[in-house]
Amino acid sequence: MSELGRTLAPPATKGHVSVARLSQHWYVACQSQELGSHPIARTIIGTPLVLFRDDKRQAGALLDRCPHRNVPLSLGRVSRAGHLECAYHGWQFDGGGTCRLVPGLIEESSRERRAPAFRVRERDGLVWVYATPDVEPRSEPFQLPLSNARGYVTVQRRVQAEATLHATVENALDVPHTAFLHRGLFRTTKTEAEKNVITAIVRRSADRVEAEYLGEPLPTGAVVRLLSPSGGTVQHWDRFILPSVAQVEYRLGTENHFLVTALCTPETDFVTRLYAVVSFRLRVPAALVKPLIEPLALRIFNQDAAILKRQSDTIREFGGEQFMSTEIDVLGPDIWRLLKHAERGDPQPEELVAERRVTLRV
Amino acid sequence: MSELGRTLAPPATKGHVSVARLSQHWYVACQSQELGSHPIARTIIGTPLVLFRDDKRQAGALLDRCPHRNVPLSLGRVSRAGHLECAYHGWQFDGGGTCRLVPGLIEESSRERRAPAFRVRERDGLVWVYATPDVEPRSEPFQLPLSNARGYVTVQRRVQAEATLHATVENALDVPHTAFLHRGLFRTTKTEAEKNVITAIVRRSADRVEAEYLGEPLPTGAVVRLLSPSGGTVQHWDRFILPSVAQVEYRLGTENHFLVTALCTPETDFVTRLYAVVSFRLRVPAALVKPLIEPLALRIFNQDAAILKRQSDTIREFGGEQFMSTEIDVLGPDIWRLLKHAERGDPQPEELVAERRVTLRV
Amino acid sequence: MSELGRTLAPPATKGHVSVARLSQHWYVACQSQELGSHPIARTIIGTPLVLFRDDKRQAGALLDRCPHRNVPLSLGRVSRAGHLECAYHGWQFDGGGTCRLVPGLIEESSRERRAPAFRVRERDGLVWVYATPDVEPRSEPFQLPLSNARGYVTVQRRVQAEATLHATVENALDVPHTAFLHRGLFRTTKTEAEKNVITAIVRRSADRVEAEYLGEPLPTGAVVRLLSPSGGTVQHWDRFILPSVAQVEYRLGTENHFLVTALCTPETDFVTRLYAVVSFRLRVPAALVKPLIEPLALRIFNQDAAILKRQSDTIREFGGEQFMSTEIDVLGPDIWRLLKHAERGDPQPEELVAERRVTLRV
Repeated sequence: MSELGRTLAPPATKGHVSVARLSQHWYVACQSQELGSHPIARTIIGTPLVLFRDDKRQAGALLDRCPHRNVPLSLGRVSRAGHLECAYHGWQFDGGGTCRLVPGLIEESSRERRAPAFRVRERDGLVWVYATPDVEPRSEPFQLPLSNARGYVTVQRRVQAEATLHATVENALDVPHTAFLHRGLFRTTKTEAEKNVITAIVRRSADRVEAEYLGEPLPTGAVVRLLSPSGGTVQHWDRFILPSVAQVEYRLGTENHFLVTALCTPETDFVTRLYAVVSFRLRVPAALVKPLIEPLALRIFNQDAAILKRQSDTIREFGGEQFMSTEIDVLGPDIWRLLKHAERGDPQPEELVAERRVTLRV
Repeated sequence: MSELGRTLAPPATKGHVSVARLSQHWYVACQSQELGSHPIARTIIGTPLVLFRDDKRQAGALLDRCPHRNVPLSLGRVSRAGHLECAYHGWQFDGGGTCRLVPGLIEESSRERRAPAFRVRERDGLVWVYATPDVEPRSEPFQLPLSNARGYVTVQRRVQAEATLHATVENALDVPHTAFLHRGLFRTTKTEAEKNVITAIVRRSADRVEAEYLGEPLPTGAVVRLLSPSGGTVQHWDRFILPSVAQVEYRLGTENHFLVTALCTPETDFVTRLYAVVSFRLRVPAALVKPLIEPLALRIFNQDAAILKRQSDTIREFGGEQFMSTEIDVLGPDIWRLLKHAERGDPQPEELVAERRVTLRV
Repeated sequence: MSELGRTLAPPATKGHVSVARLSQHWYVACQSQELGSHPIARTIIGTPLVLFRDDKRQAGALLDRCPHRNVPLSLGRVSRAGHLECAYHGWQFDGGGTCRLVPGLIEESSRERRAPAFRVRERDGLVWVYATPDVEPRSEPFQLPLSNARGYVTVQRRVQAEATLHATVENALDVPHTAFLHRGLFRTTKTEAEKNVITAIVRRSADRVEAEYLGEPLPTGAVVRLLSPSGGTVQHWDRFILPSVAQVEYRLGTENHFLVTALCTPETDFVTRLYAVVSFRLRVPAALVKPLIEPLALRIFNQDAAILKRQSDTIREFGGEQFMSTEIDVLGPDIWRLLKHAERGDPQPEELVAERRVTLRV
């Protein structure tokens, strides 16, 4: 006999999926420029939010559900007084979530009416939200490095992956896949014999894990040829910082410095939004390089997004993950350990740093 | 770790949804004109039905599933003998659900073959069905008032809302939302100070609840200006009658009388079909007013349908409702109480009438 | 109160669906011609498979999920060495499922890395797969009769039904529906009085059930008129052979012989793929008949596929089947008994043959 609705009978799995829901943290909800005079809807860790600006242009974030009849507040508008007005019966809320008007109601009961409110910080052109409503945050949003540094150009882009936060971050910080998935764009395919043996030093502390690659040859793909035509040494770090920051840093020769910081927002278990902030200093003028780099970077990201979506589909189809790692999955398992401990709220010894070395062919 | 399939993690709710399934009642299944010589499929309280007319044009209603191999009977046709013939193997059923022919079968077993049959009444151009099959109804369908009254014009329309019966009926009988959702069409937005304070008398008895509005100013929207240009007094009643009738009655001055009766059919928990019967007597000729009123009424309904759908979506996304009412939600909570008691089969004291007064700004 | 997500409240059913999952058997995964130099994805009993040809053109079948990061292997390509290479990180697998290369990895651990592998047989232009991975098959694939017989023409076609294996096979071997569903194409509708009474002898043994029809009149539909214009006697057998073979055999007069063998592959519980092998010998040249027969056969199959889909929809909507059979459902109930026993692994007495007679009007 058959279970109804179940149309697949794949081999049994452990039912595990690498999803950790860290709600006592800040995430980017939108770019400042996305939030104008109309309220907008966003989702963070499965929670629907409405964002709006009051009469002083101050950003506010409420649960996107009117407490009266459960219509999304994001269908509403901002009143002259700077309150968010529900589209159905016109109830008005301030940025702290308090209902300031119920149109038509005369007898004021003493009962407080409110919508859960989320703390907001706006900086660096980004609107951050603390993912738990109605509490005092235990931290501040991630401080972006270099975004105002002299001699650096900074670019922001927003993309999206249909994958878990963990899979998205692991992919962003993973070296071995680049020669296959991004064949010819980033690293070229070589036979194992043609490759160089290099060493990665992996350092893990309470809130982060970093890999420093030593002896890495200059990649031979199109992207790199544009930036460092005469070769030179490469310095390369990949970094994950709790709860959701993926950072890739490159120094090519003495003049070129790249820092890509992907601020990841887990919208739902299988949808992750990335606010990528790229700061760089180059030997050639930025205006010359940008129109060439951007389409390449986007093409690389689209290949990643496509494979991540198929990974998510397969995990859901099989009812869970069954990953098998090797030591050249340099950061992925550590990232999962950090996420899991943070979700459990395990105490984090401030100063502990574990270090290990991995050799791999690149 | 994550629950698979669950991609949202919204704040906990009570898991309650205002759905009552009253199956010991009559509902409109279709308009008489919709049911011709071909069988048609309809759904009532989640039950798929097939409706057909036999050789005497008598309407019949069976469960829309052939008892032989579970193909929908609505794929079939009506035979010359006036039986409903399944499209797959040709089994034939009469309006009472009895199988009258199994083509090819010689040995008649003594076992009765039948499809569950629903009682049908056809009147006022509507086909009513009793929602429990194979039982003797405990009541008759709702008797439409005024539909043949002298001096009155009657119009029928069919629309649909993706919302629970309760949310649909509450919306139809709710006053405060009209100034916001139907801004400019029905009631205009005023500041609270500009509004009039009026009184509603709410009367509840065993099978109904009614609000009578006293001192209501003549609405200033476009619809009203057409009908009562010289002003005059307004009399206004909103009424809910079990199991699913919503009625709005207006008297403007001495000459204009409007009665909108929405006969609601809960197709599924979140889809409600409304058969609206509008009877009216006006100071101006009906032929003059109808082409102006109809598009306005439809536009108002479409705004209601849109907001109700978003309400349903939000309720499902959050895994349940969390409503907060005030006293100017004049009828909604009473309607839910009536539905819930009727579903439980609580005894209904015939004569009890509770009465209360509510003041509100309009 | 309402169960969320449930929008239908149909009459209670037993929750039974005629699905048996026989995974210790061979099924056709694809036609030989479908499998070229690129890997392809197929599903058997809910299990996603990747099929590919190695450097010797030998077909292999693996679970379609890379053990590393669970991306479908069917997104990959075949390497020069004839291994299946994952598109994400380039892991390579041979036809036996063993991982032969992890690009970039230096330290070889002693841990074996592999993907579950399925046994494959290629014959008669079809690629067969044993549905349980990593085991020694207990049987060989079904041996096609007549496919190389002298004087016979053999044609292969692939079609698909959105229905259970049982419903699909029962439909393929069912006589009474043809006069209704295929009205005018195969058998014509007659009144019961106009029909002939014929006898079917039903023989059931350990792995099969067969009906032989005696005294069957020459069908009067278009298909038959093409083949046997002068009439003659009809011999007709319908056969089901475990796990999933449906066979229809016709002899019209002495010269015409038809054998349709439908090799059915249950992709999921409600999707069945049919590899139909038609072998025939006719009094008229095959080249003359084929262009006339094929469109008719396809039209008949499309009618079957449409009704089977509606049957599946109804079963799922009602939460299960509720079939009522008569004795002229000649093979269906026996087929279900065979499938159910085979799923349970009941011992099958080799020689037992049960025989019974059924009379029916055709």
